[in-house]
Amino acid sequence: MQRVYILCTGGTIEKVYSEQTGSVQNLDSKIDRYLRAVRLPDLDVRTFRLMNKDSLEMTDEDRRQVLDAVRERLREPAPVVITHGTDTMVETGLMLKNGLADLSVPIILTGAMTPLGFEGSDGLQNLTESLLATRILGPGVYVVMHNQVFPIDRARKDREKARFVWK
Amino acid sequence: MQRVYILCTGGTIEKVYSEQTGSVQNLDSKIDRYLRAVRLPDLDVRTFRLMNKDSLEMTDEDRRQVLDAVRERLREPAPVVITHGTDTMVETGLMLKNGLADLSVPIILTGAMTPLGFEGSDGLQNLTESLLATRILGPGVYVVMHNQVFPIDRARKDREKARFVWK
Amino acid sequence: MQRVYILCTGGTIEKVYSEQTGSVQNLDSKIDRYLRAVRLPDLDVRTFRLMNKDSLEMTDEDRRQVLDAVRERLREPAPVVITHGTDTMVETGLMLKNGLADLSVPIILTGAMTPLGFEGSDGLQNLTESLLATRILGPGVYVVMHNQVFPIDRARKDREKARFVWK
Amino acid sequence: MQRVYILCTGGTIEKVYSEQTGSVQNLDSKIDRYLRAVRLPDLDVRTFRLMNKDSLEMTDEDRRQVLDAVRERLREPAPVVITHGTDTMVETGLMLKNGLADLSVPIILTGAMTPLGFEGSDGLQNLTESLLATRILGPGVYVVMHNQVFPIDRARKDREKARFVWK
Repeated sequence: MQRVYILCTGGTIEKVYSEQTGSVQNLDSKIDRYLRAVRLPDLDVRTFRLMNKDSLEMTDEDRRQVLDAVRERLREPAPVVITHGTDTMVETGLMLKNGLADLSVPIILTGAMTPLGFEGSDGLQNLTESLLATRILGPGVYVVMHNQVFPIDRARKDREKARFVWK
Repeated sequence: MQRVYILCTGGTIEKVYSEQTGSVQNLDSKIDRYLRAVRLPDLDVRTFRLMNKDSLEMTDEDRRQVLDAVRERLREPAPVVITHGTDTMVETGLMLKNGLADLSVPIILTGAMTPLGFEGSDGLQNLTESLLATRILGPGVYVVMHNQVFPIDRARKDREKARFVWK
Repeated sequence: MQRVYILCTGGTIEKVYSEQTGSVQNLDSKIDRYLRAVRLPDLDVRTFRLMNKDSLEMTDEDRRQVLDAVRERLREPAPVVITHGTDTMVETGLMLKNGLADLSVPIILTGAMTPLGFEGSDGLQNLTESLLATRILGPGVYVVMHNQVFPIDRARKDREKARFVWK
Repeated sequence: MQRVYILCTGGTIEKVYSEQTGSVQNLDSKIDRYLRAVRLPDLDVRTFRLMNKDSLEMTDEDRRQVLDAVRERLREPAPVVITHGTDTMVETGLMLKNGLADLSVPIILTGAMTPLGFEGSDGLQNLTESLLATRILGPGVYVVMHNQVFPIDRARKDREKARFVWK
């Protein structure tokens, strides 16, 4: 059975609607709950929460923590999926690419434009695609969203189109 | 076939998530779209949009507009459902009760704590309940939500519990 | 807090899709699971399973069991909702009406044309409506489905239209 | 923009629940409707219906029709996804492998254990995975379902587990 690590950092994909404040916030974890809707009979998924932040609020220290967490999982090589806010996903991915030498597995960053469980959400699609991509992609750092696979240095967020485009 | 009027004023029930701003707002109409998920073979539903506002932003002028709109529908008596933000739902309801003499049909205010289509939303439940209530309730002004029927002068919003309670 | 009894007898509303046989069957209970999607803060719901049958397979003995179960709940009067297949719902309802004298609460039969959780299902709508109806209806035996409330001796299933109509 | 062909042949993934018969059948097309729930901004999807059959009822003539349809799309090479019943998916896949020489694109068979839109359905997951796989997989004939990618001659359906396993 293939192992895969999922490192959760927050971002839109995990935002929840608060009935008390009437706003969406990174309050609770959602990834595990939604993964139960996907059939993964031959996958040993290990989910870890690193933080739960809007990616615009991630600091250099936060990114170092992500790098350290990925490094630790790579000791026993298995693919890593990182759920992340889209606004600084590429920044974190480039930092990972620079900090990780001699990769033997794919490192995939993914997230969502609309939170998991909200009408029209792309969150489960992106998780599904990322987990499938860990089965096929070669070593490297990628963004996988919306049926697209971007090597990290080729991805750019187009805010108006609400998606990533080629750089 | 029974006729019913639905007057939409906005509120949480109709909020949408904006991918551009990352916030929830009263931008588009949702009621009609979600009503299509409910089977109403013997009901002639007439939906009208009056405004699309967070109810904390409703003015006296807005409330007068609601009163006028209800009055107009009552000329040919048919029950009226008003979708409304919960924060000032009781205020609008009391104004209607005071402004409408000799009611022969029920006037029902309803809304939601979480927008239609968001995970855990109570919006479709409240719409379903309100439309069923128009079949059974006698004349009067009511709040119908969460399996509860409140005469308007008995309802109070409990913000912490995120629901209405008896006054 | 208002008490309500839900007596489950099976029918389409509770059918599940079996991946082994590729058919829909009355195998598991679903009502409780779907009730969790509805907010009932002021309702004390007590659910009981009597049987899990396609209503075309219900026998006279099964109907006696339903009558006995309703009688037992009526000792401490509280409304009763009975989930039931639509094909013989009226038959069971008429038997209840004949067998229950001096009702002080509503007895509501409901069900679905498409199983709970299948696309386009009317099951949650009908449950929601029936529970709201227990709040308002006077004593009697009713069918509540699709925004309609039928006294039991006025209801007739129209198989082609897939709904109940007035008799 | 990448082109992909989707050839629909029926199978469980497209079964619908008939309220008139109370059974699931291959009556209508569903693939296009559910694809609208997936964001494919850089994919030019061309969907074609070949037949709508339970795969246990597919004949040699039906399989020849599938082979001809794939051959026609391969003239202008673009990946092909074939939605298909799981019972004879491998049989059709092996026939395609034998009949198609010098593939330059992936041919992916997929389907579902539970129809699209039924609770717990794996249909949208499998479609999402298959469309992502067309982006990454090399030439060949594959089964893609449940986060697994099987070369066609390595796949075997395990009916009891309701999934494919390695042969």
